[in-house]
Amino acid sequence: MTDDLPPEAALAVPEGYQQLNWNHGFGRQIGPLYVRLDAKVGRSMAFRVEEHHTNGMKNCHGGMLMSFADMAFGNVVSVERSSYWVTIRLTCDFLSSAKLGDWVEGAGEIMGLEDDAFTVRGRVWAGDRPIMTGVGLFKTIAPRAPRPGEKAYVRV
Amino acid sequence: MTDDLPPEAALAVPEGYQQLNWNHGFGRQIGPLYVRLDAKVGRSMAFRVEEHHTNGMKNCHGGMLMSFADMAFGNVVSVERSSYWVTIRLTCDFLSSAKLGDWVEGAGEIMGLEDDAFTVRGRVWAGDRPIMTGVGLFKTIAPRAPRPGEKAYVRV
Repeated sequence: MTDDLPPEAALAVPEGYQQLNWNHGFGRQIGPLYVRLDAKVGRSMAFRVEEHHTNGMKNCHGGMLMSFADMAFGNVVSVERSSYWVTIRLTCDFLSSAKLGDWVEGAGEIMGLEDDAFTVRGRVWAGDRPIMTGVGLFKTIAPRAPRPGEKAYVRV
Repeated sequence: MTDDLPPEAALAVPEGYQQLNWNHGFGRQIGPLYVRLDAKVGRSMAFRVEEHHTNGMKNCHGGMLMSFADMAFGNVVSVERSSYWVTIRLTCDFLSSAKLGDWVEGAGEIMGLEDDAFTVRGRVWAGDRPIMTGVGLFKTIAPRAPRPGEKAYVRV
């Protein structure tokens, strides 16, 4: 899938990021995806735009950016609650295109909470270029065991 | 990818639908996708929920539904204008989950046009169950040759 990227670009993962071990379903299909757990520089998710993410113009497809936004924005709910959650609503404003080979990052910020529904403001960027801004409404549905990087996680 | 679906369900394509020949990029990665061109029953797009579309709960991932909505809603712009287009904004309200094996359909309806930006109201459903409703803003960027099913297409 990455034949048309320089090998060094396809392999380069910025410091602090580690690959998510999502080996099933849609998460695997649109991956690989990365997460940065280091609280000092801020938690975020990321991916490298590869051929299998592109539209007919060789930019990252809007569907990929929205799928990524859903995960990157909703991720703050996981950090806060260590819970399974579902998306109730997501609004995405596309600001600029992400190009083949770009390292794309995204993060969310909790703005409100009511009846187990978190309102999250988020953004997606590539380097110093803003790609998307958006707002999501995510509802927790069932608690699960805390994972590394989540507030309730205790290193043993 | 469809090992966990009954073969007949994995193969069944409702009458009137034909598979899109999207053999590059994100459209291929999340496919196969289908379109129904028959104007008598209404133009729509569709896909069968397979393992590579699922989330951890074995339902269709919200990212897949949004990616599909982007294509199915924006498709009416292609029909109207035979033009390349980009998504400026998409708002998706999730109403119900689509299950593994479901045949999911989606369609859009043009509500307004200003400065080459189409406002499209759309919905996604599985059988008689509504899955999503949403509104997209799509902007045409460059004309291209008309394709079958588009208003400007002339059969030769």
